[in-house]
Amino acid sequence: MTTSSTPRPAALIVRQASPPNLESPFSSLDGRITPGESVYVRSHFPAPELNAESWRLRLGGQVDTPLELSLSDLRAMPAHTVAATMECAGNGRVYLSPRMPGVQWDLGAVGTAEWMGVLLRDVLGQAGVQAGALEVVLEGADCGTLTDPGRTPGNIHYARSLPLAKAQDDVLLAYAMNGQPLTRDHGFPLRAVVPGWFGMAAVKWLTTLHVTDTPYQGFFQTVDYSFWQSRDGLSPQMVPLTTMLVKAQIARPAPHDCVPAASVFEVVGTAWTGQGDVTRVEVSSDSGQTWAEAELVDPPQTGVWRRWRFEWQTPQQPGTVTLMARATDSAGRTQESGHDVGRGGYMINFPLPITVHLRGQEA
Amino acid sequence: MTTSSTPRPAALIVRQASPPNLESPFSSLDGRITPGESVYVRSHFPAPELNAESWRLRLGGQVDTPLELSLSDLRAMPAHTVAATMECAGNGRVYLSPRMPGVQWDLGAVGTAEWMGVLLRDVLGQAGVQAGALEVVLEGADCGTLTDPGRTPGNIHYARSLPLAKAQDDVLLAYAMNGQPLTRDHGFPLRAVVPGWFGMAAVKWLTTLHVTDTPYQGFFQTVDYSFWQSRDGLSPQMVPLTTMLVKAQIARPAPHDCVPAASVFEVVGTAWTGQGDVTRVEVSSDSGQTWAEAELVDPPQTGVWRRWRFEWQTPQQPGTVTLMARATDSAGRTQESGHDVGRGGYMINFPLPITVHLRGQEA
Repeated sequence: MTTSSTPRPAALIVRQASPPNLESPFSSLDGRITPGESVYVRSHFPAPELNAESWRLRLGGQVDTPLELSLSDLRAMPAHTVAATMECAGNGRVYLSPRMPGVQWDLGAVGTAEWMGVLLRDVLGQAGVQAGALEVVLEGADCGTLTDPGRTPGNIHYARSLPLAKAQDDVLLAYAMNGQPLTRDHGFPLRAVVPGWFGMAAVKWLTTLHVTDTPYQGFFQTVDYSFWQSRDGLSPQMVPLTTMLVKAQIARPAPHDCVPAASVFEVVGTAWTGQGDVTRVEVSSDSGQTWAEAELVDPPQTGVWRRWRFEWQTPQQPGTVTLMARATDSAGRTQESGHDVGRGGYMINFPLPITVHLRGQEA
Repeated sequence: MTTSSTPRPAALIVRQASPPNLESPFSSLDGRITPGESVYVRSHFPAPELNAESWRLRLGGQVDTPLELSLSDLRAMPAHTVAATMECAGNGRVYLSPRMPGVQWDLGAVGTAEWMGVLLRDVLGQAGVQAGALEVVLEGADCGTLTDPGRTPGNIHYARSLPLAKAQDDVLLAYAMNGQPLTRDHGFPLRAVVPGWFGMAAVKWLTTLHVTDTPYQGFFQTVDYSFWQSRDGLSPQMVPLTTMLVKAQIARPAPHDCVPAASVFEVVGTAWTGQGDVTRVEVSSDSGQTWAEAELVDPPQTGVWRRWRFEWQTPQQPGTVTLMARATDSAGRTQESGHDVGRGGYMINFPLPITVHLRGQEA
């Protein structure tokens, strides 16, 4: 007998009430696309309420023609639809020990949506990027004061930069998600979608694009959303986070679920990577000592997670086990067993231990 | 009758015992060059004890010929002597309100010494800098672990970078200070001296020079020793500290000194700037409401402070006054009256209020 649990109600889990940091109920996984009302929300400052009529996107800096575009201007440009898996760089932070500062995300700071908008490269092409340009800074309307002692610059806006090559590749300026206009929490009227990158690059409530020949050094670029990386034989440097890592997650059983002993249970989940495609998922039911191959349900699609399933023969006796999943991608990268301390509270892609309780067979 | 106070004993003031952060007794100002035993000491990690025989300076990265130089090799190269005023970027921090984190320096995290060594440009020339190089990273032997929560990368070394243009200009790799080999606290056997820049650039216990085409992003470059600067109409960014600002300081009277009322007291001090020369010093004895011209004692010498004096007609009655000094440089820059919050605990160059008590005339 094979049992499986059905998706759960899809309400968002509140990790922080204000500003809203809301986690997707990952155990409600069903289709490949996450329903709009279940897409996680990450906010750094209170969500701005922008007026669709008066709002403008300004593009300046090292361009031939600075632009000021209304929402109507953008909607009149060629529209593109891109499905993209987006993961917060701190997804899974609750599994870190010792505890790291920041929102204590479990499994649900990740999701996949279909975004519609214009390509950033089309907007840049309209303005004409000048020779020598290096990056595009994306700044949002969301702003506030940092409370880090001694580091208060007054009011700052959320902003990140992208290398010009990425900006001229596949970055979308989205005005719709899953066929609906963006909600306020998701960045109305316009946000970036940066395929393959962690969510911090997907600046919401976009108001300013600035093309620059100087590396951008905003707080969310160099201090927050950076990690320690060794290079050139020097001591580690703080390097901005960019692409997502290869990672598999178990949606069901959910952590601390009870499943029947001595039966076959269908374990399901998703797996994604920031570059290329996921090619393999494995599951362990003995805390990572042995691994068995899972079946990939979805065909490969760059930038979009693949669902997978695994028929788990549960132990004969009641008790507790630790399930894990790990993925490998087309670049041959796989998940390492531990967390590199240099990553701090970010890029958590060791196989997360999911505790599952086995109950005796029902009569 | 003109009175003046004599220089005080020159013992260093302990601001932090371990690692040693020792302040120069600024009120002991006498000659233009600070005696070696009075030069301030700034340490981030315990002072390494390096062996002069086995120590090597390694130069690598974007060069034609990587080098490994002994102290003898360096001493065999053309020697240069450079007098330079060096100020810690946090000098004067004790005057900030609210209090800022970091060593609570009063007036003495500044001094002027005569350094002897080789020009960094000569070493770079020997190695051959390749086209496309952007910066030179200077790394010291001093190392330790940062305790910033969630940001622990394990052991890191102190390091800073210099733009190639500065590195190929007047930067000295010094093995002697005021005619004596460097002491351990001052970076034995080799340290950088970066004329015009705040002291954080003058990396001590030098072991590694790395020529790179990538902006360096070490902790002491992008997080510590950086400040908030607005540019391009974007929200402030964290920009590495570089050149010293124009600044005058009063050496005598020292803070909270008693001086005779109804007399002429010779106020003395120094003034410096990171670019060009100091051209003017003014003194106020009414908390900055009115200013009177001071006399510059030393001739201009780029990179070296100028001593100044001012004959102060003290008030007729006993009481308390606030003395201030402010400087202007050859670029027309002068000291502003307040501290820009974006500077955090750095670049403190508002005219510091020196409280002085007036005592009645002695019989």
